[in-house]
Amino acid sequence: MDANEFREAAHAAIEHIIGYCQSLSDRPALPDSSIHPGYLRPLLPDSAPQEPEKWDAIQPDIASKIVPGLTHWQSPSFMAFFPANSSYPGMLGELYSAAFSAPAFSWIASPAITELETVMMDWVGQALGMPECFLSSGGGGGVIQGSASEAVVIALVTARERILRQRAGEPPGGMDPRTDEDWAAEEAREDKLGDIRSKLVALGSECAHSATAKAARIAGTRYRSVPVSRNNDFAMTGADLKAALEHTKSAGLVPYYLTVSLGTTSTCAVDRFEEIAEVLKDWPEIWVHVDAAYAGSAMICPELRYHLKGVEHFDSFDFNMHKWLLTNFDASIMFIKNPQQVTASLSITPPFLRNKWSDASLVTDYRDWQIPLGRRFRSIKIWIVLRTYGIAGLQAHIHKGIRLGEQFDGWLRERSDLFEIVTAANFGLVVFTVKPRDPKGATDQEAANTVTEAVYEAINASGELFLTSTKLGDVYAIRVVNGNELGSEKHMRKAFDLVVKISEQERTNGDVNTEIEVHERVDMDPTAGKLELDGTA
Amino acid sequence: MDANEFREAAHAAIEHIIGYCQSLSDRPALPDSSIHPGYLRPLLPDSAPQEPEKWDAIQPDIASKIVPGLTHWQSPSFMAFFPANSSYPGMLGELYSAAFSAPAFSWIASPAITELETVMMDWVGQALGMPECFLSSGGGGGVIQGSASEAVVIALVTARERILRQRAGEPPGGMDPRTDEDWAAEEAREDKLGDIRSKLVALGSECAHSATAKAARIAGTRYRSVPVSRNNDFAMTGADLKAALEHTKSAGLVPYYLTVSLGTTSTCAVDRFEEIAEVLKDWPEIWVHVDAAYAGSAMICPELRYHLKGVEHFDSFDFNMHKWLLTNFDASIMFIKNPQQVTASLSITPPFLRNKWSDASLVTDYRDWQIPLGRRFRSIKIWIVLRTYGIAGLQAHIHKGIRLGEQFDGWLRERSDLFEIVTAANFGLVVFTVKPRDPKGATDQEAANTVTEAVYEAINASGELFLTSTKLGDVYAIRVVNGNELGSEKHMRKAFDLVVKISEQERTNGDVNTEIEVHERVDMDPTAGKLELDGTA
Repeated sequence: MDANEFREAAHAAIEHIIGYCQSLSDRPALPDSSIHPGYLRPLLPDSAPQEPEKWDAIQPDIASKIVPGLTHWQSPSFMAFFPANSSYPGMLGELYSAAFSAPAFSWIASPAITELETVMMDWVGQALGMPECFLSSGGGGGVIQGSASEAVVIALVTARERILRQRAGEPPGGMDPRTDEDWAAEEAREDKLGDIRSKLVALGSECAHSATAKAARIAGTRYRSVPVSRNNDFAMTGADLKAALEHTKSAGLVPYYLTVSLGTTSTCAVDRFEEIAEVLKDWPEIWVHVDAAYAGSAMICPELRYHLKGVEHFDSFDFNMHKWLLTNFDASIMFIKNPQQVTASLSITPPFLRNKWSDASLVTDYRDWQIPLGRRFRSIKIWIVLRTYGIAGLQAHIHKGIRLGEQFDGWLRERSDLFEIVTAANFGLVVFTVKPRDPKGATDQEAANTVTEAVYEAINASGELFLTSTKLGDVYAIRVVNGNELGSEKHMRKAFDLVVKISEQERTNGDVNTEIEVHERVDMDPTAGKLELDGTA
Repeated sequence: MDANEFREAAHAAIEHIIGYCQSLSDRPALPDSSIHPGYLRPLLPDSAPQEPEKWDAIQPDIASKIVPGLTHWQSPSFMAFFPANSSYPGMLGELYSAAFSAPAFSWIASPAITELETVMMDWVGQALGMPECFLSSGGGGGVIQGSASEAVVIALVTARERILRQRAGEPPGGMDPRTDEDWAAEEAREDKLGDIRSKLVALGSECAHSATAKAARIAGTRYRSVPVSRNNDFAMTGADLKAALEHTKSAGLVPYYLTVSLGTTSTCAVDRFEEIAEVLKDWPEIWVHVDAAYAGSAMICPELRYHLKGVEHFDSFDFNMHKWLLTNFDASIMFIKNPQQVTASLSITPPFLRNKWSDASLVTDYRDWQIPLGRRFRSIKIWIVLRTYGIAGLQAHIHKGIRLGEQFDGWLRERSDLFEIVTAANFGLVVFTVKPRDPKGATDQEAANTVTEAVYEAINASGELFLTSTKLGDVYAIRVVNGNELGSEKHMRKAFDLVVKISEQERTNGDVNTEIEVHERVDMDPTAGKLELDGTA
């Protein structure tokens, strides 16, 4: 493909993409019912072509074979999981990232890629009102991870290595002993590490994203969750944490890592930072990571920053610009108070190769701030998004999402005959249940769960709307959230009317067998909408 | 930015990108000497703008502030690390990926994204002549990781969890015990796991990429490297491995994971698969992962597939299409013989949520095949690249890279007064040293190292060419590899002439102080070109 062919192909692709984006307002969020597991394979050849094909042959296949099988996250009827915003400026950023493609693992591997990232992290940190200690000017620093779940792995492995260093000292030789003497010294140290490591336990509230449990498994340590209560709107309190810490201690375990949430996946609960910080004064070895994957974006609005109070006591913080700040996936922003702890844990550069430029932070080698070695040029996308929308434009986008949630919340309350609110609109997210037609009393949770689940599945089966359900203790509930650029009151109202209609039908019909089709279409993977709520962690 | 503004901006960006690509033939690989650490910050405002800016204001800044600070991996004078190919079709793929943006963690999160990936992995597996056991038709399967280093983490954590399950049984309750009884049972099991885990050791040859040592650290297990010898061209032999295994066993350790390389970073050595498989018959608990990050691409040429002999004995295999197969970073292709081992290790879906569709592989939830939850739509890029070039086009690209390496190798041999070849051209990579002017005998390694390092640094300081050095035992050597689309005999010859000229100068000058400028410009981070050779692992 030469330059002329590329120009022609790119122009055609741009028109196709514009047409796709313009169709989104009227598109249902889910693929149509003809899309079954395995739909694509019969439509494609068995193997790659031997000879080159022209763009004229390729682009039509994207339209006819791929688009029908997409779930349209930018559809204003997409109210599932959390939003994963895409935008025209984000696409331009990705286009430039592809053009300047480089696995920029160190400064010299492409200086502009490293330097723009450092500056953008400070821009974003300022825009969110992050405490100075997380910005490069305050001794901290930001880094773009691919996902909030990778940020949890980084924080958790750093926490584990930090407590191991504190308790067992620095390694005597490098990673890789050669002489018999080095072997013996390293074996002795590793034995000690093994003893300590085997008692370490990572913690998170029971509403923390499953990424923490997964990270603990990757890191090879125990994980225990901290029970929370509906009385506190599912936020972890200082007392909840204290009880869990004492429990683990009495079992002979050593807590070393804690995820606190600024906006849990199920209900957008915000754990009680100041209470937690107070408790943790007695547990200085615990690394605290703030998972603000979705709601962190809202901190761009100054009036919401009271949620950050106490965050300066914690060690790291991550949120996804690719969820609610109009930046294409992936752009997960991680701020770290003491990046040297991360590099000391992840760098495999032996001590004799340390140098004054790196130590003085004259250059940053982001490979030591992340799991992979190579990394994409993601900051150019952030730069373009921030400039194209301006802080004011991004604030307006957040305000709209919050307002839509409050409207939906209000409509639910007007129909308290049909619905019960589990948690009120919070960062645009509303969580509710459907009341059973003939409630046998306040304790008939099972009947409420049955009708709520039936409503949930019928809604998604309709194809018009895509929602997510969750389980809070023994309560089965439905989540609604609309953080899309195309989201509007009109779409919200349409969604509400559909929820009402289906709820009334399901309550009237009881358990009629409309679910058969539902199960076949939407619930192929029962875990999809239930356990893994979080689209982009 | 509305559709019309996007169209206009995208067309302008496309012209900018075409202009950039057309300039690459004459561009040096490294930024010019005005680019110092910290160059960018003074050129940018201190914070993000409050109000929106137009594309007319943004694009010129990309040209004036970012492009000068890029390292140009597509420049034909880029002969460092390994190539990281970009291409017009790859850019189109990234553009579509951005347009259809979705964190496709499960099938329903965007069916087309999952299904195209599954089919593309079979296309790529066939194109490489991978044994059937790694393809979905043979019970295995492929997945696109972001990088070869993530693939190592996945393989290593899976290996660790497998041996723990084999030795300690399945977990009694879920991940997260609630009742006192469950706590006690889980504590007992975790204690046992801790004991086993603390003795586990991961292995790789001393020429294996540092990603294995880093993965072992992330996973919290020991790592030991297997010594290899120059007599065997730095390939790990069966005997090398056997000795290392017996050594670890005698120290009371339990080997559970091994990286074998198909093309090491320093010299493109290929470990001796069949000998290694023979030795490992006595060590059935070891998971073997093949790191073919760079050279794996060459398997698209049938005449080179003899390198794969024995690979069917191993458990997983990874190579980067984003290195040498004209696909933009990131596209790391991982084949797994038994994907159930991976999902059993990484999935946090509790058993009661398993379902017949997932178990029957009717749907694949790739989130359980990787570290992060969310994932980009990478397969559309692979689809577009495979179709645009065809297998024939990709084979021609590989053949060219191999030929350029052989030419350079031949020229070095013609100047055996100046150069000594450390390893002959192998997958396009040549490794050589400069002979000292007045060699005091065959053992004067130090003099050879001094002049070779001086030549290396002077070459990179020239700005015309970007190479990488390496250390093999006590030999300091220079690597040359050109796998770029724009690479040509003309550029190779120009590079060789420069190497000759600088070598002759350095031999004449001895240790004159031309290095001062070198250190300031190129060697800001001494680790950049030495330890971390591999651009994209």
